[in-house]
Amino acid sequence: MRMYDLIEKKRDGGELSEEEIRWLISGYVAGDIPDYQMSAMLMAIYFRGMSDEETSIMTDAVAHSGDMVDLSPIAGVKVDKHSTGGVGDKTTLVIAPVVAACGVKVAKMSGRGLGHTGGTVDKLESIPGLRTDLDREEFFAVVNKTGIAVIGQSGNLTPADKKLYALRDVTATVDSIPLIAVSIMGKKLAAGNDAILLDVTTGSGAFMKKKEDAIALALKMTAIGEAAGKKTAALITDMDTPLGFAIGNAMEVVESIEVLKGGGPADLQEVCLALASNMLYLAQQGTLEECREKAREAIESGRALERLAAMVEAQGGDARYVYDTGLFEKAPYCREVTAQADGYIAHMDAESIGITSSMLGAGRETVDSVIDPAAGILLVKKTGDVVKKGDVIARLFASEEKLFAAAEQRYQKAVTIADTCPKERPLVLARVEKGNVEEF
Amino acid sequence: MRMYDLIEKKRDGGELSEEEIRWLISGYVAGDIPDYQMSAMLMAIYFRGMSDEETSIMTDAVAHSGDMVDLSPIAGVKVDKHSTGGVGDKTTLVIAPVVAACGVKVAKMSGRGLGHTGGTVDKLESIPGLRTDLDREEFFAVVNKTGIAVIGQSGNLTPADKKLYALRDVTATVDSIPLIAVSIMGKKLAAGNDAILLDVTTGSGAFMKKKEDAIALALKMTAIGEAAGKKTAALITDMDTPLGFAIGNAMEVVESIEVLKGGGPADLQEVCLALASNMLYLAQQGTLEECREKAREAIESGRALERLAAMVEAQGGDARYVYDTGLFEKAPYCREVTAQADGYIAHMDAESIGITSSMLGAGRETVDSVIDPAAGILLVKKTGDVVKKGDVIARLFASEEKLFAAAEQRYQKAVTIADTCPKERPLVLARVEKGNVEEF
Repeated sequence: MRMYDLIEKKRDGGELSEEEIRWLISGYVAGDIPDYQMSAMLMAIYFRGMSDEETSIMTDAVAHSGDMVDLSPIAGVKVDKHSTGGVGDKTTLVIAPVVAACGVKVAKMSGRGLGHTGGTVDKLESIPGLRTDLDREEFFAVVNKTGIAVIGQSGNLTPADKKLYALRDVTATVDSIPLIAVSIMGKKLAAGNDAILLDVTTGSGAFMKKKEDAIALALKMTAIGEAAGKKTAALITDMDTPLGFAIGNAMEVVESIEVLKGGGPADLQEVCLALASNMLYLAQQGTLEECREKAREAIESGRALERLAAMVEAQGGDARYVYDTGLFEKAPYCREVTAQADGYIAHMDAESIGITSSMLGAGRETVDSVIDPAAGILLVKKTGDVVKKGDVIARLFASEEKLFAAAEQRYQKAVTIADTCPKERPLVLARVEKGNVEEF
Repeated sequence: MRMYDLIEKKRDGGELSEEEIRWLISGYVAGDIPDYQMSAMLMAIYFRGMSDEETSIMTDAVAHSGDMVDLSPIAGVKVDKHSTGGVGDKTTLVIAPVVAACGVKVAKMSGRGLGHTGGTVDKLESIPGLRTDLDREEFFAVVNKTGIAVIGQSGNLTPADKKLYALRDVTATVDSIPLIAVSIMGKKLAAGNDAILLDVTTGSGAFMKKKEDAIALALKMTAIGEAAGKKTAALITDMDTPLGFAIGNAMEVVESIEVLKGGGPADLQEVCLALASNMLYLAQQGTLEECREKAREAIESGRALERLAAMVEAQGGDARYVYDTGLFEKAPYCREVTAQADGYIAHMDAESIGITSSMLGAGRETVDSVIDPAAGILLVKKTGDVVKKGDVIARLFASEEKLFAAAEQRYQKAVTIADTCPKERPLVLARVEKGNVEEF
């Protein structure tokens, strides 16, 4: 087999065979296929796309390029959730305990934040003592004991994806729906869960700015999951405005705990209920209605909060923080951002607000950056709210005052105040399962 | 400037600025831009194309990436010709002496053969003693003395093209009309002539299989030449059937000399007259009609043949070979290929016939292959001819008998015999100048 022929075939709109795709992925990981040929192939895929069959085979090849996690030491149904990223997106911290409280196991490997999006692992580490670097035996033991564990990616998981992503990142081939689907689902298949719920975000703070693209990605990913024999569904959720009010690691944990206590922002509550009930549904715990009721009850009864506390303790963290969020370290400096005009908050550029939070110390510019757990933003006014000139619209938090000038300027630019009230967007825009798209 | 942004811009259909294109080419030659980013860019160009302005700027950048030949030591108008390649395409050997005999200088740098196409330099070297590695002073002196010199490419000419072509060759990005135009015209601009005639071949033995693609390439190349202030025109010539009867280095020189003596195959005569008259026209020697008459007269008078002999001698070759072609070394072995059926020669796969010739020793599979000057093919029957089963349709020549089996098999496969006479194709299909396409 010659790489040249495969590039030419894809360039001309052909479909790669299973043998060709497996040769492509294994040859690239082995270093037999040079980067310059793979990048030409990736650009050809960018333009020509991949069929569902090609995508499924490539995902399987990527998943099997490294360790395949065997979750069989964990009893019961294991369900995973993946979000394509957002700003203020702390849903994992809420729904994992909710689902666990309903008797479904959540053995979750999460990422760290990069760019404008945060990562669950970074957020959890703002709880003193909490370890996310559990080895496999510890990981299984925590899940078996508490129903839930959240750790960072460990071991030699999907090396093909790491190498491909690094190349895509410098060759403008990231924005390809089949390649995104392969990357996400490769990791999900390697992680070994029985069911996978995909949270495909869309809007100004999401990777998929357009709803149609989000749906296309959801269709690709669910097709891959189903082809691999996993129960898979996707919700398209709104990320045009940051989710909840808190952006920043410790502040997001606090806000998640508020939701688990039955309070917190209404948008976050609603998205979490939708996600949790869909996870339970995929884990065959009843109809969607019944699962929603179970999720709600897990919160109202306080059992979900107890699960979070149990997990924090089992992962070495100080569980008192779960019950008394006043213990979280606060940033020494706060700057209020005020409205520059009267009117409605007509639009928030969520991606830019995510970058603002990162500038304050809450995120990473590069993978080596150190995170300030207390830094971030508390939104006061969100899209649709009425403001008067001089009203506080957000509070910025940082460990150094000098970080505020540029951040405040960026925040102001990210928020548009206008005379007319923007049209309300649904929080959950669509649900995708087995090739069906149900729009709301 | 970041290469990523340029790839993204081209990927999304944008037009690269002059500054961006010059940075791209110089950065790539300098090694600052890695192959894996350039190959992604090349594939994006493959899909998105380049505007005439982008193509012209890139060509200028490629031309200036190395030495620019200064032909000013040669007095008078210097005119160049470039063929996009073919099988049995020995026109340079005829038209250069013809044009020189008409008082226009031909200071030509030619290539060697590779794959199914031959190269003028290889052909000339079948004349004993003839050197094609003249240094610049010798080159100028020969042209000033005889009106004509043909040498191999020397010096540090268009290193950007060499590096880009090597990358395109392994990433399936050769077949891009703007990239082909940049590559050819970059070398032509660096070669320093005043006028450029392009012979864009089309058909089974040509790079451009389709006439429309040949015209598109001709339009791109002439636009580049004109933007660079050169008189430029293109003829689209037929290469669906090999040109003339001879394929192979010494045999092609012999056939060219026959044309210069007023004989030779009619198709070769006609194409050479068309090319020579257009070269003279671009060198402002009169109307196309007048130039055609001059070219014809140069042959009839024997002055063109004298020019070839003078050039051969000035380049160190044995000029007796020009007057007595019986002196050329002959291959020790000959194999006749006979028709397998009665009918018309309905089609010849010229590319495959070129490869057959190469298999006999006339061409190169890799740049390091050694060429047998006496090897090759003499066609006996060509497209449109009537044959009876058992008639000789071609003679193969080689230095070893064992080369015949595979070559004969390939030749038989390359020739289609059918009951109906194929439609005659014009030898010159179109002429392109200043954006105008005149089809014949």
